[in-house]
Amino acid sequence: MAGKDIEKLVKLVAKLPALGTRSARRIVLQLLKKRESLFLPLIETMTEVAEKVKTCEICGNYDTESPCSVCSSETRDGTLLCVVQDVADLWAMERVSMFKGKYHVLGGVLSALDGVAPEDLNIENLLKRLHREEIKEIILALPATIDGQITTNYLIQRLKDFDVKISTLAQGIPMGAELDYMDEGTIQLALNSRKTL
Amino acid sequence: MAGKDIEKLVKLVAKLPALGTRSARRIVLQLLKKRESLFLPLIETMTEVAEKVKTCEICGNYDTESPCSVCSSETRDGTLLCVVQDVADLWAMERVSMFKGKYHVLGGVLSALDGVAPEDLNIENLLKRLHREEIKEIILALPATIDGQITTNYLIQRLKDFDVKISTLAQGIPMGAELDYMDEGTIQLALNSRKTL
Repeated sequence: MAGKDIEKLVKLVAKLPALGTRSARRIVLQLLKKRESLFLPLIETMTEVAEKVKTCEICGNYDTESPCSVCSSETRDGTLLCVVQDVADLWAMERVSMFKGKYHVLGGVLSALDGVAPEDLNIENLLKRLHREEIKEIILALPATIDGQITTNYLIQRLKDFDVKISTLAQGIPMGAELDYMDEGTIQLALNSRKTL
Repeated sequence: MAGKDIEKLVKLVAKLPALGTRSARRIVLQLLKKRESLFLPLIETMTEVAEKVKTCEICGNYDTESPCSVCSSETRDGTLLCVVQDVADLWAMERVSMFKGKYHVLGGVLSALDGVAPEDLNIENLLKRLHREEIKEIILALPATIDGQITTNYLIQRLKDFDVKISTLAQGIPMGAELDYMDEGTIQLALNSRKTL
């Protein structure tokens, strides 16, 4: 079939999230077709990112410098810390561009099923930051899953001796959603946490 | 949000077929996470493919050599030529590993809508091959779409002065399909071309 090198590339591309062999083949063909406009610029940018981007030693974000631009920012509120599961969640928070505090990336959530224990997460560094930095409030913005909630509860326990306010994101019906399409758990939760107007 | 280089990479990845910004972000994060096991090998393989792989001057296939391994093969039947739309279709044919002839990649099909004219396709080279090579049968394996059929008819016209047998792939109900899920056109076609047992 296709040359060995092409086959090897298809296999590597198929390892990327949400891609299978079929879409990997389409992508590789597209790259070969658009050599000048896509393939070569992509290789160049990937090489640059691989060379330059590192993990921020303070919060765990990815950036070209460490500490990252968020951690080293003078204008952001260092007393407010948002704990997220992953850099993807940090990016999602930044896209809203409403949060002006700093971050801490846990690198996952506790999971009995996947064998993720507290020592696998970036928790010790979080405690060290609480000793070192003047943090007044911690927002636990972990996923609204069972594992996320277990992790939130675990962190509340670990943080209870520190003099910080702890909060989590509000849960309820997302914007634009119709009740008919929501799961029972969300409706129950929204009902229990209903707001008096 | 994320560094400029990362943003640039996300934008490039989002240009790949079937990917949007969201999946591009996930892919870039995965690359950064699996730096040694995925990111660096991928860059290396892409660089290798970009350097080595070229378009076969005879059939239009991609390979590390030109003429490609199919065209230069001694064991394949040079009297049988399969005309396909794209390298992807050539690969699909090769995966079946039943066809032992050679190929000719058109590089598309005629399309009034997309403004693809005969001179945009690799047709002149096909005619030259018919003069030069000893081709006895041409299988027109173009897509079963209207544009594909128009292209097939056009090629039949262009090939009628040559002493070659022309055939197309059989059309009908695909293997494993249930009638209930087939479109009317396919059922009609399968009915009209029914086989007496």
